[in-house]
Amino acid sequence: MKKKMLLISSSKFRGGGYLDHYDKTIPHFLLGVKEIVFIPYSAHKKNWEAYTQQVKDRFALWGIKVLNVNDLNLYSALLNGDVRAIFVGGGNTFRLLKNLQFFGLVEAIQKAFMSGGGLEYYMGASAGSNVAGWGIHTTNDMPIVYPEHGLEGLRLKNIQINPHYFDPDEKSLHMGETRPQRIAEFHEESVIPVIGLREGSYLFFDEGLHQHGEMFLGGKETGAKFFFHGKEPIDIPYPCLFKLNHETVTICK
Amino acid sequence: MKKKMLLISSSKFRGGGYLDHYDKTIPHFLLGVKEIVFIPYSAHKKNWEAYTQQVKDRFALWGIKVLNVNDLNLYSALLNGDVRAIFVGGGNTFRLLKNLQFFGLVEAIQKAFMSGGGLEYYMGASAGSNVAGWGIHTTNDMPIVYPEHGLEGLRLKNIQINPHYFDPDEKSLHMGETRPQRIAEFHEESVIPVIGLREGSYLFFDEGLHQHGEMFLGGKETGAKFFFHGKEPIDIPYPCLFKLNHETVTICK
Repeated sequence: MKKKMLLISSSKFRGGGYLDHYDKTIPHFLLGVKEIVFIPYSAHKKNWEAYTQQVKDRFALWGIKVLNVNDLNLYSALLNGDVRAIFVGGGNTFRLLKNLQFFGLVEAIQKAFMSGGGLEYYMGASAGSNVAGWGIHTTNDMPIVYPEHGLEGLRLKNIQINPHYFDPDEKSLHMGETRPQRIAEFHEESVIPVIGLREGSYLFFDEGLHQHGEMFLGGKETGAKFFFHGKEPIDIPYPCLFKLNHETVTICK
Repeated sequence: MKKKMLLISSSKFRGGGYLDHYDKTIPHFLLGVKEIVFIPYSAHKKNWEAYTQQVKDRFALWGIKVLNVNDLNLYSALLNGDVRAIFVGGGNTFRLLKNLQFFGLVEAIQKAFMSGGGLEYYMGASAGSNVAGWGIHTTNDMPIVYPEHGLEGLRLKNIQINPHYFDPDEKSLHMGETRPQRIAEFHEESVIPVIGLREGSYLFFDEGLHQHGEMFLGGKETGAKFFFHGKEPIDIPYPCLFKLNHETVTICK
């Protein structure tokens, strides 16, 4: 079984509806998948049902059934190999990680997505994309709750994402740190490259198609900016297959 | 001894130089104070010396000597009543809190600023203002490091600040959460009011002048927006003395 991953920067794009911008990408990614478990834990508990319903309605248009996380023991189901696909939705990244830790799902998702586990598809949006990588250190969200077991992500891929990335407005007189300045602060503490994933873009990985270290940067026109420790960032504004290491990013021809 | 507090939203304002916008406010606040200890812990360790030098140069114009935190055992000095004034500078709020926790300064500053302690003046800028309140839950900074003892602030006053506050751009097509949306996420988890302190504004408190719960909102023209749990926010765009509780903010005539 070949593992597949789709990481979307944002659920909406330029005022469009929920996941509208990915109306072709998602059903293509999930080809042959009949049902997917939705994880709404980045929202407040009182909104889990409504959030899941929104996702159910959207995926119904693609003929995919969405399972409510409250209707199954996800921890056991993942470890028993009974879950083939999960979608981790966007919201507050600290709350998402705290809930994943609380329900034991960090370990369960990791084990199920490893070689030999039954989880074949991981799909994330915004917070759900961020948490799939190394850590949530480059989230834009406020720390409204405290994840008591640290800020490590699921580490399904060796990447570090800043979702909703946008370039600074040179004319702005706002004196708060710009996004690149905040990422530079992260690089005072870490050597891990950061993928500034612009809205409208996504990252895609398929173990059956891609070599180790390779990922596909998709989306129409926005791309991503790659930030490195002690080096100039590299902007790739178009879709391409790339290979990333700690030093640089290379476009695969 | 009457405790005094000055909390600045940002060290710079509309492209001006370091603390230039507070050229009258700070020497007025520190009237009669000959020396102040600067805490540079929101910056990376490699920059503590340079950051302290910048502050020394700026305060020299006001005739105030800045003491380097590395030249004294601040923990003991605070508890012995040997420190009358501290200035906690801006930078990354997670790093600031982690360092304060590491050096035992959360407890030491709290004790020294309590009635009977020797610390009379607390001054903060941005991260240094944020950390003085209830918790760092409404910081705009990225969690580049993990404060291992939680996100509680110094709690010198029962306030929760969002520094560098700005109102959303209605025309923006960026789909990331706006500042009010992020603060609303905090209010899904907490009932504590949030003071969205605009750049150019500051909060001032003097135990000798103000009643319990009162603070002065200063600055020329930007003010603050007050956010409450389950209620509409209240915008006070001008300087005034105010009284805040969990339900509302009142302007004192």
